[in-house]
Amino acid sequence: MKTVTAEPLTKHAFRPFGDVIETEGAESLLINGGMCRRFNDLARVEAVGEGARVLVNIFRARPYPLPLKLAIVERHPLGSQAFVPLQPRPFLAIVCPDEAGRPGTPRAFLAQPGQGVNYARNTWHAVLTPIGGEVQDFLVIDRGGEGSNLEEFFFADPFEVRLPEAP
Amino acid sequence: MKTVTAEPLTKHAFRPFGDVIETEGAESLLINGGMCRRFNDLARVEAVGEGARVLVNIFRARPYPLPLKLAIVERHPLGSQAFVPLQPRPFLAIVCPDEAGRPGTPRAFLAQPGQGVNYARNTWHAVLTPIGGEVQDFLVIDRGGEGSNLEEFFFADPFEVRLPEAP
Repeated sequence: MKTVTAEPLTKHAFRPFGDVIETEGAESLLINGGMCRRFNDLARVEAVGEGARVLVNIFRARPYPLPLKLAIVERHPLGSQAFVPLQPRPFLAIVCPDEAGRPGTPRAFLAQPGQGVNYARNTWHAVLTPIGGEVQDFLVIDRGGEGSNLEEFFFADPFEVRLPEAP
Repeated sequence: MKTVTAEPLTKHAFRPFGDVIETEGAESLLINGGMCRRFNDLARVEAVGEGARVLVNIFRARPYPLPLKLAIVERHPLGSQAFVPLQPRPFLAIVCPDEAGRPGTPRAFLAQPGQGVNYARNTWHAVLTPIGGEVQDFLVIDRGGEGSNLEEFFFADPFEVRLPEAP
């Protein structure tokens, strides 16, 4: 089985796939008489097509054991999908470049506490993957409305996703 | 000074002002092969007017001492505004009914860990009010785009907002 080793989640590395939602490196301004710092516009939210609107949801997800067998990815042609952890625990954001309508080799990004992700519209990604050993809640911002907004792809040869070896 | 005593934040009590973003009492479904429970569509997100789009932001807010002197409220005619704490600490959601274009008597709702709020478009509210003694981060979902999206109102006689006495 081919192995994918997780890499750190950074804005730069993740840019082809969407946004990292974090305060680190974000523009900000003071508001409310100096009582609040606003880190502004951290994700490109898209919801297109008939009757489209932006949904706010909470996903309560069970953690996956590692190494992870990755057999399926999906994408949403009509909307972005953002995941922000509501507890300070890590999770894996697994994405694939598109290669002529099919997912290429996956990349796994290890999100640290304080980081969320927004998958850009039509970006191949694995299902939400907490790894911390405990059930984890995420705030999820995605699209509701009519239309076919899910495309799935099954890898004939699944991948194995691992964390890097501790140095 | 007139006193406003905070009341518990419940979906029912908050309905005239917007949504409570919480899993409690929300419809849900299992997804991802049973690994994830989706609490679906918890807030009515609105972003109207020219060039409007939905923004995702992080607000890092300093806590306010209690009792709180409430002298000003605001509203956003072109969009809703949601606040979800990223640490499990309480905050106050302070809102006012509209009375012929002016805010009526404020109501203060005490949000518990696990609860966020979404102020409906054009709802009078106070600025974000953490009370926990520590700086608190919130994920904020609101509107970006052209147009005048802020209306402020200054109370001639400020209110004093208090927590209820411990029983």
